[in-house]
Amino acid sequence: MNKKVILAYSGGLDTSVAIKWLQEQGYAVVACCLDVGEGKDLEFVKSKALTVGAISSYVIDAKDEFANDYALYALKAHALYEGKYPLVSALSRPLIAKKLVEVAEKEGAVAVAHGCTGKGNDQVRFEVSINALNPNLEVIAPVREWGWSREEEIDYAKKHDIPIPVNLDSPFSIDQNLWGRSNECGVLEDPWVAPPEEAYDLTTPLDKTPDTPEIIEIGFEKGVPTTINGKSYKLADLILELNYVAGKHGVGRIDHVENRLVGIKSREVYECPGAITLLKAHKELEDITLVKEVAHFKPIIGQKLTELIYNGLWFSPLKDALTAFLDETQKTVTGVVRVKLFKGHAIVEGRKSDYSLYNEKLATYTSDDEFDHNAAVGFISLWGLPTKVNSIVNNKKVNV
Amino acid sequence: MNKKVILAYSGGLDTSVAIKWLQEQGYAVVACCLDVGEGKDLEFVKSKALTVGAISSYVIDAKDEFANDYALYALKAHALYEGKYPLVSALSRPLIAKKLVEVAEKEGAVAVAHGCTGKGNDQVRFEVSINALNPNLEVIAPVREWGWSREEEIDYAKKHDIPIPVNLDSPFSIDQNLWGRSNECGVLEDPWVAPPEEAYDLTTPLDKTPDTPEIIEIGFEKGVPTTINGKSYKLADLILELNYVAGKHGVGRIDHVENRLVGIKSREVYECPGAITLLKAHKELEDITLVKEVAHFKPIIGQKLTELIYNGLWFSPLKDALTAFLDETQKTVTGVVRVKLFKGHAIVEGRKSDYSLYNEKLATYTSDDEFDHNAAVGFISLWGLPTKVNSIVNNKKVNV
Amino acid sequence: MNKKVILAYSGGLDTSVAIKWLQEQGYAVVACCLDVGEGKDLEFVKSKALTVGAISSYVIDAKDEFANDYALYALKAHALYEGKYPLVSALSRPLIAKKLVEVAEKEGAVAVAHGCTGKGNDQVRFEVSINALNPNLEVIAPVREWGWSREEEIDYAKKHDIPIPVNLDSPFSIDQNLWGRSNECGVLEDPWVAPPEEAYDLTTPLDKTPDTPEIIEIGFEKGVPTTINGKSYKLADLILELNYVAGKHGVGRIDHVENRLVGIKSREVYECPGAITLLKAHKELEDITLVKEVAHFKPIIGQKLTELIYNGLWFSPLKDALTAFLDETQKTVTGVVRVKLFKGHAIVEGRKSDYSLYNEKLATYTSDDEFDHNAAVGFISLWGLPTKVNSIVNNKKVNV
Amino acid sequence: MNKKVILAYSGGLDTSVAIKWLQEQGYAVVACCLDVGEGKDLEFVKSKALTVGAISSYVIDAKDEFANDYALYALKAHALYEGKYPLVSALSRPLIAKKLVEVAEKEGAVAVAHGCTGKGNDQVRFEVSINALNPNLEVIAPVREWGWSREEEIDYAKKHDIPIPVNLDSPFSIDQNLWGRSNECGVLEDPWVAPPEEAYDLTTPLDKTPDTPEIIEIGFEKGVPTTINGKSYKLADLILELNYVAGKHGVGRIDHVENRLVGIKSREVYECPGAITLLKAHKELEDITLVKEVAHFKPIIGQKLTELIYNGLWFSPLKDALTAFLDETQKTVTGVVRVKLFKGHAIVEGRKSDYSLYNEKLATYTSDDEFDHNAAVGFISLWGLPTKVNSIVNNKKVNV
Repeated sequence: MNKKVILAYSGGLDTSVAIKWLQEQGYAVVACCLDVGEGKDLEFVKSKALTVGAISSYVIDAKDEFANDYALYALKAHALYEGKYPLVSALSRPLIAKKLVEVAEKEGAVAVAHGCTGKGNDQVRFEVSINALNPNLEVIAPVREWGWSREEEIDYAKKHDIPIPVNLDSPFSIDQNLWGRSNECGVLEDPWVAPPEEAYDLTTPLDKTPDTPEIIEIGFEKGVPTTINGKSYKLADLILELNYVAGKHGVGRIDHVENRLVGIKSREVYECPGAITLLKAHKELEDITLVKEVAHFKPIIGQKLTELIYNGLWFSPLKDALTAFLDETQKTVTGVVRVKLFKGHAIVEGRKSDYSLYNEKLATYTSDDEFDHNAAVGFISLWGLPTKVNSIVNNKKVNV
Repeated sequence: MNKKVILAYSGGLDTSVAIKWLQEQGYAVVACCLDVGEGKDLEFVKSKALTVGAISSYVIDAKDEFANDYALYALKAHALYEGKYPLVSALSRPLIAKKLVEVAEKEGAVAVAHGCTGKGNDQVRFEVSINALNPNLEVIAPVREWGWSREEEIDYAKKHDIPIPVNLDSPFSIDQNLWGRSNECGVLEDPWVAPPEEAYDLTTPLDKTPDTPEIIEIGFEKGVPTTINGKSYKLADLILELNYVAGKHGVGRIDHVENRLVGIKSREVYECPGAITLLKAHKELEDITLVKEVAHFKPIIGQKLTELIYNGLWFSPLKDALTAFLDETQKTVTGVVRVKLFKGHAIVEGRKSDYSLYNEKLATYTSDDEFDHNAAVGFISLWGLPTKVNSIVNNKKVNV
Repeated sequence: MNKKVILAYSGGLDTSVAIKWLQEQGYAVVACCLDVGEGKDLEFVKSKALTVGAISSYVIDAKDEFANDYALYALKAHALYEGKYPLVSALSRPLIAKKLVEVAEKEGAVAVAHGCTGKGNDQVRFEVSINALNPNLEVIAPVREWGWSREEEIDYAKKHDIPIPVNLDSPFSIDQNLWGRSNECGVLEDPWVAPPEEAYDLTTPLDKTPDTPEIIEIGFEKGVPTTINGKSYKLADLILELNYVAGKHGVGRIDHVENRLVGIKSREVYECPGAITLLKAHKELEDITLVKEVAHFKPIIGQKLTELIYNGLWFSPLKDALTAFLDETQKTVTGVVRVKLFKGHAIVEGRKSDYSLYNEKLATYTSDDEFDHNAAVGFISLWGLPTKVNSIVNNKKVNV
Repeated sequence: MNKKVILAYSGGLDTSVAIKWLQEQGYAVVACCLDVGEGKDLEFVKSKALTVGAISSYVIDAKDEFANDYALYALKAHALYEGKYPLVSALSRPLIAKKLVEVAEKEGAVAVAHGCTGKGNDQVRFEVSINALNPNLEVIAPVREWGWSREEEIDYAKKHDIPIPVNLDSPFSIDQNLWGRSNECGVLEDPWVAPPEEAYDLTTPLDKTPDTPEIIEIGFEKGVPTTINGKSYKLADLILELNYVAGKHGVGRIDHVENRLVGIKSREVYECPGAITLLKAHKELEDITLVKEVAHFKPIIGQKLTELIYNGLWFSPLKDALTAFLDETQKTVTGVVRVKLFKGHAIVEGRKSDYSLYNEKLATYTSDDEFDHNAAVGFISLWGLPTKVNSIVNNKKVNV
């Protein structure tokens, strides 16, 4: 019997062709399609794999695991790669790798295959993750290996009766999950050209968004968003709901020229209505519940976790140490944030918490003021002392 | 003759009362009003000081110095305190301190006075800066010292024929310069309450902004914005122009609960249409012109400079080292950014530069691709090696 | 009845005078002496407090708590303030504050008092800690408050029959605990002068150390040192034993001009034979057990914890988040380190661990080599790609 | 005529064989030997290249350039990779690459070759540097490419009359320059085994060092060491002199298990008597001349530069920005440091500077004290305010 390979299968042309190609290399192909919230018809994908030649075909619903164990840490970390990209695909890769390895171990497979090319970040994320989880498994990257042009690939598909997707001439390369949607290629490759409207799918264009704002209240428990307008949702559903509501108001479009791990700059377009809304709301709840030292140091942790995830090192022990830090900071991040969704904005208008460290009696300029104004004199004297001594010594402007 | 004090004079009630109060302490008061772009009628302010009792009154136009030596570094640093506040007042304080010291040295004054209270950041910025520039000068903070209630202050003013401003019952405390406008106090003190429309002045409310976007091109030379739509401006004028154009489209409102240096959280509302537009455009030009290592490390420098400025340490030698770093990075930040101003957004739609490191032939997925796909195999192998060895040793999942 | 104050009592002149002085302010004084390993005769101290006038006198053995909850984190963090100072006094202050607050709450006291002056770091550490633990307690700093000269203080002591310590004319100010001994003042105040031999107490001078090295093996479990030469010790005892053994060989002298939190530079001399030996050994065990990303990021956490402790913020929530990170990294820091103690050096000569990530088959240059040399070609190609593109664009040295 | 290749030639077996091997690939080989202070007989090396078959042979004295443009920045940065390794080889590689490219351009060569294997860091440093300086040049790594065992290589050498070095059976692989000497391989590959005495060359073993200390004074001008005991030296000579003097006292042995860029841990032994002595002295001069904010932030810059150099990115624009920062900080690092060399230690006993910010009148505990003790009260109150508010809110221990 042929050795088994588990193929991360999307239903698209590349991975369909890969089924046949892997068979020709002598493998029995098990297709595996992960549902991380991309909203595709996965039953169709599942049966297509069998049609094309897979010996069996899995569809695994990993939405909750993705939301709770992956997207949630991106939220807690305020993860925005280079200040802009909320780690859409970068977040799902390690989870998909984990599921592929689980299936491989269950099926007794010797290899795992993915459909990435040789110039993206995702190949790194898949392969490093798979190696970390089971270094005994071989990793195969058929698309990178065969090195065909688009035409050659289509010829191969036709010759082997592999169905050609109807949208094949779409100029875009899309990936989507709960946390958002990414899009690259085509006209986007010129960074001077504005992304065309058809590059977007989850968000209403600004000039078509409603003229009436929608105001929602998002409730958080220890950093986890749990309610919208007082109604409880499990996290995966809450994100989907926000994708819909905030997307309707045009929230979450991102146009980014980014530095890939593999050494090139690329231009990508993202849509993350739910993620952007949650990131804003969560940050503002932290603004009132985190003590200053935590608020000022936490971004360094978040930044490191962001890089780590972007760079495919989710299964590094560093991830566990960083998330241990983050979890510790979230103990009091409980409260409600009022967000106005309007014309592409998610504007935080109000925030409140039983753990709020904002103290009106200290902050006020009214007669309720409890702040000790005289303390400032001593504070300033010592705070500025090093600078003052430096000036005395080095500016020689004074006689002391 | 009485010893001279140089008073930072704004024309408002506090500093007008301070003129009289300082006289009662035995000082001859020289009023000094700095024009850093707040758009007030400064001749009126100048003569009011004399009316109230100053022995002389200066108005100094410091707009260009403020733009070129202060705001420009906030731009190069992408300075946003706690991710939100573009350092409006924090930026002007050291410059005002510098001018006060210059006047003091010219006038032979023994002291400098400012109108800050004892709970804000500005007292720190003024006093540390003055001490750094001339440690021999005494610093007086009349408002902090007299400790009167609002009513007591008004009584004192009436008794001494000090004009009471007509807008005295405004609930807000405003500061403004080229880089933006800050607002605190009053209803803003409750962080659950949305800022009322009257808290804003430079920006059109979203529901009243034009329904047609305005597209502008901003040109940069070595990190300095120099043109709008091809027309050259000196920096101060360029910022003012953008305040007008972007403000019309509602760009630049910020609502922030921030951690003050003096240990409390306060809620502030800012409007920075020009600053926010420039910060976005500058960042996107860097996205194509900075090499990855610089792009990833520069935010640490920017963050440190932001803290330093917020915390009143502008005249620390650390500032010079940080700006030396920043200037070095700006040598190739030359190019044009196309920005769409619409419904409160400054959306960068395109960026181009002769120094662009974005290489379409490396980034493309077309047949023009010059990227070496096979290199990725070796890269991933070494990139993931530490994680893999860690798994082999610590997960014990494999037999090697 | 008089209100009670809990006084941190050392038995020295300052705190003995403080007993009487506090009585004169109307307090009933409860003396409290913490044993954190300074090796004093604490029963004598206890009874001296009563002699001088305290209504009761506590001696609390906090050595284990100090070792396990405080010193251990300094070890895990590789805490060296400004690269040199292992946080001797800075570590004990929060624990002493905690014990004082516990006694205050048990005794129903209204205040806590300490013997610090107004220019050191310790006053900050005591007062911030006490405020964090029980903001209702008043904090009194008699020495800072009375502001007497040395002569005035001695006069006061004589007048009130307070015993004058025999070593009163010692030029030094000493503090000691398990983690080391600090010394300031006197001749040390001139940073050009070498510390005199009598400034040291725990360490043999280099020219008198044994001419034969002593080789010890220190065993660690999850980052905690547990054995010396195979013999188990509880942590407090292990540190004391190392103070003795390493001190005999002259290990751990530190001469440091440091930046105090209160804005001045001061020159201090430390002796930390056990701490320095453990810090070296622990780092080298981490060198073989931590994966590269953790090894490279952990110093940022350690540095932040060091600053936090130095700056008196032990009871900030940031401490808990930082230690959560550290604990997570220590899971595999288990193994044995062989240390040669000789002529003031603690030289790590060997390290081994079941969790060692050092892989001889990857590292070797012999024929056992399992490293994939060809992988390097691809790695270098992508690693250097941004720099190469930058050169092509900006150096214009080539025609492409 | 054959295309020319410039070979970095050391005179050892690998690069001698490479001359012949490159000839067989059709190249005319120009040998190029850089003198960066390794103390070899370079005329012998030069003529050996010709003997073996090079068409011409360069010896370039780059000691001054290495000292002034490379080692000096390692000193200013306090560069110690992973806290231990002073970047010996990592520093020289970019300079050697630069010289090779210069020779290649002068000679009209099409390629540059180096003798590195496929598992070290140096291949990365050479190739990234060469690519950055002239991306048109091909880079050849004969040793990595031929992949021979030691025996095969020797057979090849014998067959082609290439002289076999007499010390061929040395178990060590050595690299040396002004900044130190590195050693790997052989028995060192077991991290539990102490390095044998024969692994060292520049330093006296501790038990053979003089029993009398040697005290020297090192003078610095703007961060550059310029004098020893008042006598001026150019930098390269000063380092060499310190290598001799400090080496005699056993200073500068380092035994390090380090994380290579290429993903493995390796164990290396270094000797850097001059570098370690200078690093200690320079740091202590900074301790008195740098203002606190600079002193606390500069290590982040130094650390980044260290990583950059270790990782082969010397010719990245980030290097220029980092060194611009460093240079700015060195303006007042002028003064004299007294160092006691004794039993493997370089102990700084005294430091003085006209720019010293250490102020005895602020630091003293004598009656000369000019520090304002009362200022501390206000300082502590505001410094601890966030922690206090946090406790009030979250500990609920008090009724407010």
